[in-house]
Amino acid sequence: MPKTVLDVLSSVLPFWEKLSSEDRKTLLEHTRLQTYAKGSNVHGRQEKCTGFIIVVSGQLRAYLLSEEGKQITIYRLLSNDLCLMSASCVLKNISFNIVVDAETDTAITLTNPDIFDAVSKRNPEMEVYLREAISARFSEAMWVMEQTLFNKFDKRLANFLFEESALEQSDTIVLTHEQIAAHLGSAREVVSRMLKYFASEGLVKVSRKGITLLDRKRLKYYL
Amino acid sequence: MPKTVLDVLSSVLPFWEKLSSEDRKTLLEHTRLQTYAKGSNVHGRQEKCTGFIIVVSGQLRAYLLSEEGKQITIYRLLSNDLCLMSASCVLKNISFNIVVDAETDTAITLTNPDIFDAVSKRNPEMEVYLREAISARFSEAMWVMEQTLFNKFDKRLANFLFEESALEQSDTIVLTHEQIAAHLGSAREVVSRMLKYFASEGLVKVSRKGITLLDRKRLKYYL
Repeated sequence: MPKTVLDVLSSVLPFWEKLSSEDRKTLLEHTRLQTYAKGSNVHGRQEKCTGFIIVVSGQLRAYLLSEEGKQITIYRLLSNDLCLMSASCVLKNISFNIVVDAETDTAITLTNPDIFDAVSKRNPEMEVYLREAISARFSEAMWVMEQTLFNKFDKRLANFLFEESALEQSDTIVLTHEQIAAHLGSAREVVSRMLKYFASEGLVKVSRKGITLLDRKRLKYYL
Repeated sequence: MPKTVLDVLSSVLPFWEKLSSEDRKTLLEHTRLQTYAKGSNVHGRQEKCTGFIIVVSGQLRAYLLSEEGKQITIYRLLSNDLCLMSASCVLKNISFNIVVDAETDTAITLTNPDIFDAVSKRNPEMEVYLREAISARFSEAMWVMEQTLFNKFDKRLANFLFEESALEQSDTIVLTHEQIAAHLGSAREVVSRMLKYFASEGLVKVSRKGITLLDRKRLKYYL
């Protein structure tokens, strides 16, 4: 049985039962299920005010995009994760542009941002929840910033390989050097050079299929 | 007449009048005035849970600090600005460490973070206010991140010179190249080289006193 909007909102939002029946009805009326094919843009390229998103299945990637097309991944959104940035048009003081793409075929619920904001403003539990959700994203973004600004590239790449391997639940990371560079806000050449070094040390195997972790124990020394 | 804690809280916090008289009393009892000499650390080096801060006078700088001592300025706090990061120990989901120093002699009010959080949780207007304050800091931090990751250094330095000049209300920025490098998360040599280039173009004058903006119009081309 595919999930309904009610299934999603009632199971993901911890304050759902505390809303008035009228507020619940309003949210349900202004929320719809939507699917995106792998690789398609969900928010930030054309659409500037997408709405409040809950991921039902699949995976979204939120990243910063420079005018020249340079990217850096800020966070990933998996099942049951919220995306508030895509509703930033109505969230006061959120003024930066983040781009959100579907990394796999992805199903989401999408709530009208004005409705979401209005219901939130009359429900303190929802405000606390939003404040905490924004804080969590803020912390993730600052972590990425610290990594990017302060860490040496060998450490960042090793860290990325472990994260991807966990995310894909596989020893092999099926990404091109170009794609890894985009995730890390680096250049393809820099990624290729470091992977070649890791390979020469016997830590990973680089093939057409992707990058395979061979010696996790020694690769961990780089973290 | 020096300001009292009541003066500060009632004038800066827009929700003050909406709090119950008991909540106002509780906040007043757990808030104190405190002063810091120029250059001293306010939060994040020894003290991990300083509290909720409002700047009364002076100027604070919030920055990320790497293990190797590299810094990057995230934002400045001037009179009437709030610092929530210094209360992050009680704010759920804020997990990164930010360091806050006094850039000039600075007076603040400091509120016990547990009390602040408890009062907030029973006052929806205060929650909305906190959510918006955190969002504003998040946006500022992301702006810095975009600048740092995506912008060319000439643009970043020109931008910094304009900002400092506005902040100091002077054409001359009294900072060493070392200090500018710390603000921008760069190296002294990189700053000196770019300033030398700007000077050779007649845009700025570099002297022992600092950096003087000579031709704002042409320096703006770099923004």
